[in-house]
Amino acid sequence: MTGSPSAQYSIVLRVEIDHKPGALGEVASAIGQAGGVIGDVALVSVSGDTLVRDITVAASDQGAWDRIAAAINQRPQAKVVAVTDRTFQVHEGGKIEISAKHPLKTRDDLAMAYTPGVARVCEAIADDQSLSHELTIRKNTVAVVTDGTAVLGLGDIGPHASMPVMEGKAVLFKEFAGVDAFPIALSTKDPDAIVETVKAIAPTFGGINLEDISAPRCFEIEDRLKAELDIPVFHDDQHGTAIVTLAALINACKITGKRLEDLSVLVTGLGAAGIAVTKILLSAGVKDIIGADSRGLVSTERPDYVDGSMNSVKRWYAEMSNPEHLTGHPGNHLGGRDLFIGLSGARIFEASKLAAMNADAMVFAMANPNPEVSPEEAEPYARIIATGRSDYPNQINNVLAFPGIFRGALDARAKQITEGMKMAAARAIAGLVADEDLREDNIIPSVFDRDVAPAVAAAVAQEALAHA
Amino acid sequence: MTGSPSAQYSIVLRVEIDHKPGALGEVASAIGQAGGVIGDVALVSVSGDTLVRDITVAASDQGAWDRIAAAINQRPQAKVVAVTDRTFQVHEGGKIEISAKHPLKTRDDLAMAYTPGVARVCEAIADDQSLSHELTIRKNTVAVVTDGTAVLGLGDIGPHASMPVMEGKAVLFKEFAGVDAFPIALSTKDPDAIVETVKAIAPTFGGINLEDISAPRCFEIEDRLKAELDIPVFHDDQHGTAIVTLAALINACKITGKRLEDLSVLVTGLGAAGIAVTKILLSAGVKDIIGADSRGLVSTERPDYVDGSMNSVKRWYAEMSNPEHLTGHPGNHLGGRDLFIGLSGARIFEASKLAAMNADAMVFAMANPNPEVSPEEAEPYARIIATGRSDYPNQINNVLAFPGIFRGALDARAKQITEGMKMAAARAIAGLVADEDLREDNIIPSVFDRDVAPAVAAAVAQEALAHA
Repeated sequence: MTGSPSAQYSIVLRVEIDHKPGALGEVASAIGQAGGVIGDVALVSVSGDTLVRDITVAASDQGAWDRIAAAINQRPQAKVVAVTDRTFQVHEGGKIEISAKHPLKTRDDLAMAYTPGVARVCEAIADDQSLSHELTIRKNTVAVVTDGTAVLGLGDIGPHASMPVMEGKAVLFKEFAGVDAFPIALSTKDPDAIVETVKAIAPTFGGINLEDISAPRCFEIEDRLKAELDIPVFHDDQHGTAIVTLAALINACKITGKRLEDLSVLVTGLGAAGIAVTKILLSAGVKDIIGADSRGLVSTERPDYVDGSMNSVKRWYAEMSNPEHLTGHPGNHLGGRDLFIGLSGARIFEASKLAAMNADAMVFAMANPNPEVSPEEAEPYARIIATGRSDYPNQINNVLAFPGIFRGALDARAKQITEGMKMAAARAIAGLVADEDLREDNIIPSVFDRDVAPAVAAAVAQEALAHA
Repeated sequence: MTGSPSAQYSIVLRVEIDHKPGALGEVASAIGQAGGVIGDVALVSVSGDTLVRDITVAASDQGAWDRIAAAINQRPQAKVVAVTDRTFQVHEGGKIEISAKHPLKTRDDLAMAYTPGVARVCEAIADDQSLSHELTIRKNTVAVVTDGTAVLGLGDIGPHASMPVMEGKAVLFKEFAGVDAFPIALSTKDPDAIVETVKAIAPTFGGINLEDISAPRCFEIEDRLKAELDIPVFHDDQHGTAIVTLAALINACKITGKRLEDLSVLVTGLGAAGIAVTKILLSAGVKDIIGADSRGLVSTERPDYVDGSMNSVKRWYAEMSNPEHLTGHPGNHLGGRDLFIGLSGARIFEASKLAAMNADAMVFAMANPNPEVSPEEAEPYARIIATGRSDYPNQINNVLAFPGIFRGALDARAKQITEGMKMAAARAIAGLVADEDLREDNIIPSVFDRDVAPAVAAAVAQEALAHA
């Protein structure tokens, strides 16, 4: 979706401008007329009759950059000498770095942090391996592990291309929860190899955040790692999304006066997120859920169930739901539903289909970047609308969950992330919107609310310790 | 070796002291009489007639701590309320952290560093994988990979216990060369599994520093990874030691007037370091080398060569050396040697055996912490003595090599560390001791000489680019 200028397409234009009154105004006008929005304007140098300025400009897409530069160059007072893509600039050399927590300047520093002093610390851990959670980075460090098969909306772009996302995740971990996270992008897609690799590198880490691994492999990989490792393993695409969705739903129900037990729910998209959202809703008391993938509603009468080609999680879904064996496009089954949860893809049905839903309908259309139904079009039919996007109200974003979850798990030295810990996290997130602030367009905290991660961490740690 | 008080055994004593003239002096006397050396003295709090002070004290060993505390407690003016082990304190929660290179405070920051802007960067790398060396942490990040089988002088202490050493290595990489290094401690000792694991995680890294992996597995693991990866792979215990040893020898030869081609050399210890040192000396022109392991000199007539039980690198050693088939303890074969290189273990022969060496004998006794022959005892017999220890002159320490080597390799985007790059590094290190500063006790730069890593990096990068 292009449209309004945004930071993701922002550039820095280095422009030589005549040192005359009105010249900068001409440049600014040219930028505006070409569709750019000016941010910072910095003076770089002055020489003779010419000023060099760096002008930050947000554009609506990459194509606008040439138009903006051309518009400036058409003015006799100005010439563009360089255009820098700010997003690429931020990524130059990667977005994270590793540094020492203590200075290493003297022989005494070296004698304590390295040889010979380090030997005593090594021996202590060799005698009692659990000390590795106190005396090494394990205490605060999580691996963000991917095979690059299901990255953002980009799909299977491979491990190298996935790294900027994993690094971004590491930044969010540190920024919101003080967790040191390190990306590990794997050059294999084989579940056995992924499991073996993660087990092999586990002595370094206090937790494993699986990320952007495609379904259904992600289910097996997570299950096996949870069974075989004694540190928390958490597939964020599943459980992060599930936790934040439940948090939003808890608050949506407060507004609509509906009870989880009474809801009728339709889920589209039965990948990692759709399955996990369904599971957490069931855990939270929801009873009536049906689900659809790209072939329509799943049921035990669908041909791929009958012929055995359906994967095991969808078989589970078919067996636990849809007793009436409804079939076909999910857009035809909105009638009588209280909640639509979209985790599939853009614009899968006309918004008018939502008219069939119950009163006080709740529509969580979370496909990114383009929701299953646009919020503007859904508005006449739904009381509460949430999306995955930052430019609409009620953004359902994993970042509300994963930093605090791992903070809490590490603080409690939890060996796994239990269902109870996930529920505690969801309730904590929901609880951060005070009752008096609850509104149809305010069911979930902002991703920049600094209170979220600490509250989630406290709830998760408390739950972990209560059942340790 | 205990003896003089040092930072590795330093503690912080929290002491309540009467607020009266002379009381601190009494405490200081008590500490001194118990063998402690006082460093910082900090005032923590004052309440009524009592001061609380934190006193940093270096001791000769752990046993001295109780004696020191008891000596203080015997004084009526003072009471020890807490004793903190400073080395353990430095290791609490690990020694490195991961942080964002750019702030992430606003939606615009998020839109560039994470979604949606990050997608453009991912797509660029998906189109051209080599961009991962520019737009991700690969550009500046090295893995420090170990299986914990040959850690310092501690041996096979396992991956968890090895982490403090690997973290220390990461600190040194950053401190001396600005390289981001991340420890990966592996829970497997199987060479196949190690190779597969490192290959699997390679998309994250710009280089692989293998560390403290025992011989002979380390040779196979390095060889296979070098062949299968297109990023530099470098087993520091081999090549770091070899490079710094050669650097020291180049300068030692300047002093003694000997030529590499003419040297007769005895090496003890045919593990990772002994093999690699031998190979680099051969590359540098040395012709006459014999080597010994714990069973004595290797030759093609030794029983384990004949029966085929000798490992392949020692077989190579036997075949390329010792044409006279000398046998037995290396201490009996010092006669006529110019250089002794010890990479084996403490005190393997009487120092007086060195008397049989040629004039201007060079003795590099590098076993840590206890050299093959003590420098004090070797002094009458050798013109130049080097060790691995920081408390004697001429410390042969890998830290002079590995930070600059990887800095240079990353800067040049080298796909491997070639023999030429290693030789260039050795020459660069040797060259940092100016001819006018060369002395018997000054053949190698200090580990704290900040000029070393940049000089090594420049030499390595130049060599890499010249043959790219």
